[in-house]
Amino acid sequence: MWRASIITIFPDMFPGPLGQSLAGRALARAGAPDAAGAWALETVDPRTHATDRHRSVDDTPAGGGPGMVMRVDVLARAVDAAAPEGDTRPRLLMTPRGAPLTQARVRDLAAGEGVVIVCGRFEGVDDRLVAVRGLEEVSVGDVVLSGGEIGALVLLDACVRLLDGVMGHPQSGTEESFSAGLLEYPQFTRPQSFEGRDIPAVLTSGDHAKVARWRHEQAEAATRARRPDLWDAYVRARDGSATNRE
Amino acid sequence: MWRASIITIFPDMFPGPLGQSLAGRALARAGAPDAAGAWALETVDPRTHATDRHRSVDDTPAGGGPGMVMRVDVLARAVDAAAPEGDTRPRLLMTPRGAPLTQARVRDLAAGEGVVIVCGRFEGVDDRLVAVRGLEEVSVGDVVLSGGEIGALVLLDACVRLLDGVMGHPQSGTEESFSAGLLEYPQFTRPQSFEGRDIPAVLTSGDHAKVARWRHEQAEAATRARRPDLWDAYVRARDGSATNRE
Repeated sequence: MWRASIITIFPDMFPGPLGQSLAGRALARAGAPDAAGAWALETVDPRTHATDRHRSVDDTPAGGGPGMVMRVDVLARAVDAAAPEGDTRPRLLMTPRGAPLTQARVRDLAAGEGVVIVCGRFEGVDDRLVAVRGLEEVSVGDVVLSGGEIGALVLLDACVRLLDGVMGHPQSGTEESFSAGLLEYPQFTRPQSFEGRDIPAVLTSGDHAKVARWRHEQAEAATRARRPDLWDAYVRARDGSATNRE
Repeated sequence: MWRASIITIFPDMFPGPLGQSLAGRALARAGAPDAAGAWALETVDPRTHATDRHRSVDDTPAGGGPGMVMRVDVLARAVDAAAPEGDTRPRLLMTPRGAPLTQARVRDLAAGEGVVIVCGRFEGVDDRLVAVRGLEEVSVGDVVLSGGEIGALVLLDACVRLLDGVMGHPQSGTEESFSAGLLEYPQFTRPQSFEGRDIPAVLTSGDHAKVARWRHEQAEAATRARRPDLWDAYVRARDGSATNRE
């Protein structure tokens, strides 16, 4: 079973939205008579690893500045509690300073044993934690959030839907955005006409080869227009593999 | 008051994690005697706008393929219910096909009246909805999620923390990642030494100018090493404005 351990001072934020829908149905409920499921979730609250009587997890920034910084010693103990020696799951820190999460990294993580995720709060986490506990810094989008928790939910949702038995349609995972380096083609369904706009005729032609070709062209056109960065990478990969075949 | 209207078949996912911490404290509780707050949240379930007796919100994809697509007619009615004529809030669709969310866009949205967010599910939303209801397609990170709901939580958290009266330290918003086109500098706090690693000496020197210089150098170094894309944009902007000053 794929196991997620989340280090957070807001344990009640989990599973949150992941307690519903397909992810929720696949979540093994701790203590439930039938503990079957595709994934399991535990939270570790750093406050339980604080040593002073106020259970402090933070202190003022060295060098001055607003806000508070999460302490390396308290968080290191929380990481050790979540992932004792021998636990080989990747240890992530959600932070805007991290590497942007990609679908390729999500696929790797989903194929493994699970994840340990440290959620920063306040002005961030004492930077020494990254080195002393071997954390991988991960970001979800170029925005600043109030803490790592919602970023962790993004990462978990992206991973969990790829686990065996979670998604209703396994093929869904192979024809979607980023799976081939392209954005997904546009989708349509009934009604045939709405406010003067029809479903593109090719999609109701019954010609499967034409539909497939049109969808690929649409995926390429959307990627080129909306995401020149992805498009450049796609073209390089495509031309590179064409050269390799010669 | 900043108002968010979320169109979702999982209304119980909201406010979810945003019901806690600073965002939760600033959320005006509907029906509460004291309805004061920095922001308000409502959800609209498209199922209540379905017209068949099964309250269907989806149908099979035109042209074939796995899964289901959300219907344009049902969603258009839900958008109209959430944002009647005269409601000038931006209308967003969370989708991996969208423009990546940036901190600049978040600042714009937070400075406005609020947002209307359509959360897609299944294989996505009938593409005609974007045109007939003037939606802005927005993505949070190059990953595929099981629906738009967690992306909406990312966007809301990023916006709400910038509203007046939500964050404890207003200055926090100006020295963080992306605010000047750079990643944030690393933070440190007590203890002075942990597992053989000390707080960098400059931060405990008491020399404020030296601290500021070191932090700026660290922010530049991290951005250059970790995010060449942001670094290139930063250098272009910096050199451009230098030229303009001549």
